[in-house]
Amino acid sequence: MSSATLRALGPPGILLAVTAAGIHNPLVVSLGLSALAGLFTFQAIPVVSGVFVAHGRAGKDLLKVGTPVIPESMGAIAGVIYIIAMFLFIPVPFVKWFRESSFALGDGDLVFPHNKFAQVLGGLLALMSMLFLGFADDVLDIRWRVKIWLPLIASMPLLMVYCVTYGGTDVVVPIPLRPLFDGKLVHLGIFYYAFMAALAIFSTNAINILAGVNGVEAGQSLVIALSIAANDVLQLFRNPSRAEAHLTSLYFVLPFIGVTIGFLAHNWYPARAFPGDTYCYFAGMIFAVVGILGNFSKTVLLFMLPQIFNFVYSCPQLFHIVDCPRHRMPSLDPKTGLLNPTSFLIPASPSLPARLIIRIFSATGLLRITKRDPKTRAPLAANNLTLMNLLLVRIGPMREQNLALAVVVVQAACSALAFVVRYGLVRWVYDVAEDNRA
Amino acid sequence: MSSATLRALGPPGILLAVTAAGIHNPLVVSLGLSALAGLFTFQAIPVVSGVFVAHGRAGKDLLKVGTPVIPESMGAIAGVIYIIAMFLFIPVPFVKWFRESSFALGDGDLVFPHNKFAQVLGGLLALMSMLFLGFADDVLDIRWRVKIWLPLIASMPLLMVYCVTYGGTDVVVPIPLRPLFDGKLVHLGIFYYAFMAALAIFSTNAINILAGVNGVEAGQSLVIALSIAANDVLQLFRNPSRAEAHLTSLYFVLPFIGVTIGFLAHNWYPARAFPGDTYCYFAGMIFAVVGILGNFSKTVLLFMLPQIFNFVYSCPQLFHIVDCPRHRMPSLDPKTGLLNPTSFLIPASPSLPARLIIRIFSATGLLRITKRDPKTRAPLAANNLTLMNLLLVRIGPMREQNLALAVVVVQAACSALAFVVRYGLVRWVYDVAEDNRA
Repeated sequence: MSSATLRALGPPGILLAVTAAGIHNPLVVSLGLSALAGLFTFQAIPVVSGVFVAHGRAGKDLLKVGTPVIPESMGAIAGVIYIIAMFLFIPVPFVKWFRESSFALGDGDLVFPHNKFAQVLGGLLALMSMLFLGFADDVLDIRWRVKIWLPLIASMPLLMVYCVTYGGTDVVVPIPLRPLFDGKLVHLGIFYYAFMAALAIFSTNAINILAGVNGVEAGQSLVIALSIAANDVLQLFRNPSRAEAHLTSLYFVLPFIGVTIGFLAHNWYPARAFPGDTYCYFAGMIFAVVGILGNFSKTVLLFMLPQIFNFVYSCPQLFHIVDCPRHRMPSLDPKTGLLNPTSFLIPASPSLPARLIIRIFSATGLLRITKRDPKTRAPLAANNLTLMNLLLVRIGPMREQNLALAVVVVQAACSALAFVVRYGLVRWVYDVAEDNRA
Repeated sequence: MSSATLRALGPPGILLAVTAAGIHNPLVVSLGLSALAGLFTFQAIPVVSGVFVAHGRAGKDLLKVGTPVIPESMGAIAGVIYIIAMFLFIPVPFVKWFRESSFALGDGDLVFPHNKFAQVLGGLLALMSMLFLGFADDVLDIRWRVKIWLPLIASMPLLMVYCVTYGGTDVVVPIPLRPLFDGKLVHLGIFYYAFMAALAIFSTNAINILAGVNGVEAGQSLVIALSIAANDVLQLFRNPSRAEAHLTSLYFVLPFIGVTIGFLAHNWYPARAFPGDTYCYFAGMIFAVVGILGNFSKTVLLFMLPQIFNFVYSCPQLFHIVDCPRHRMPSLDPKTGLLNPTSFLIPASPSLPARLIIRIFSATGLLRITKRDPKTRAPLAANNLTLMNLLLVRIGPMREQNLALAVVVVQAACSALAFVVRYGLVRWVYDVAEDNRA
């Protein structure tokens, strides 16, 4: 064998051997498969890029001089490799039952956990649906008002699985609010399902609107996924009674970390591959799936603070209270090579809600007037209401890779804050930090 | 309300009311949802056609004068509506457990059938995977040698579900072969899983190679699906011990019949919508899913006799024993408006296997020499080896809609034959006709 072949086959071979050797420890297998999935994603993207571009799956990189054409929808490759890794992994946590061959419901000591199995299938079904809908959106450019509902369809089997495997919709009432309710628990019923559906809709779209700069979609997703994995590991030690839920979460999130790293290597500045809606939707659905199946959706939302901020901050534009230009991405100054914030126009006499928002956001440092009438000093334009424009306004113009890094740092800082809230401050609002249901 | 609105909303409203009224009879709900799914497919296709064409999802109809451009990959619409109908249907067979709320494994009298639930999820996961891979193939034009393996990926969760819900790989040995084996049953083990994977690969690709004429893909699929449904109903009466398996099969196949009729209304001659690989793969996976989940894959194969014939008949061309032109579809004679068989070229001195095949096929009427050397009378060309070319050779040139009808009639005749074999002749090879496992 030539040394080139050895170098090409060596790492996957070693990983495969480690994975196979760990067959009786699902976590070892999951780690091995995740590393393999990352490696294959990294190797597959350059191979398929030409095919994607040839079939029109390509977009212009607007923040580069000459706007080069970059293969688009590469989330489809990351997603397919993730799904294959998961399909291969499905049997692993159930190996001991396979050896005993007792699959019947209720006979023998070692009853096959069909409910756990259904959870994994339900999660994968939601992910597979979102992968298809994301790719269909990339190809067909589905309208906004239609596509924000797609995750609702994809999350239906997940809610059903939640219903038959947990079923509980009781939520622990925070201590300060308890005088308002009868007792510690409040039964949310159908509203809890509405909350979970809303989580799926929010998290799939949230990554998609904090986007547009090389590496930023995969970068933020990587930090969220790592935070979820860290929380799972922490819970495995602190809260053994919930070990199974957090193991399931790890099994879903580790291969995602793998394929995201493999993809990010091509997507980081200067990008040679774009994620497409396919990746953003898929990443968002991963977070919804682990939150719902692991029964810790509140914690997942805590890890998405920058996305929540970005969404709330964007609302005045998304709901057209103030002007919303077609693109709100930062713009490149070809002379300096730095990104600058972009602006929306303020009409001569803005509506009352628009005036209020501009005044409040200006006072809190969330908005900078970028253009004024030279005579009257009346505001004519202000920065677009996105986290990235805000970072450029507060820190000043910077290179594209630094802006992506800034978003990743903000995301990581928010995760650190989330851990403090989750394990520190929680004592003030709940009796114990361990039971983080819902 | 205007009478137009009434006409538009009336049928879905009535269907919805019937469906809701039948909530305690899953079969009634399934029938209602299937009719609704068909209606929505019928109404959705003209609405989305423009979007598909605008984004390059279109193909030329080569068998029409002027080769008009027709929206392609419409199987994606049929598939998505099927999946939504199934997602809505998932809870229905489990309604009585929801009312009792006993989801725990093994407590109480009414234990939630997590294994049944996992079957439905596994089937849908295989279908959703195939829908994505089919659409990706339409968009990216994946190479043949790669794409014939895609169904293997998609069927992995299905085999896993089979393993944990049936697990049995014992096959009843036909009476004439019993002297060769020890006893009535033979344990196939891993080979049985290989057989099921092969079934998935075969059935997904089988529809795709009996294709190319308006209405022929959906027409043959409709006959197969109706045959499976008829067999299910027959078994419900004859074999109550297997009722659950055949009900599951009906739940999967009825909405498929619905969306196929809705699609066929636009796909029949002259077509205003093309199925794409998306539809062909999806249809094939439906048959594999019901065969595997219902544990009657041999019966499903019986209903696919024309596809098996077409595949075996095509093999000499597919494996390049004889020449295989890029397109093997019949061709249109613009003067007569009739379709004629197309031919492959025979070299001056064909290889021994090629000579053998040409001689055997000629002798059995499966091949007609379409061109001979005027002097030596040596064969120069013969009809392409597809069922449709064979029909044109045997019956003579005909209109496109008549050729599609001929294929549908052949399919229906084979289904009739399959029922005779399955319920009549089976007595000669097995002890009973009822247990049709595997």
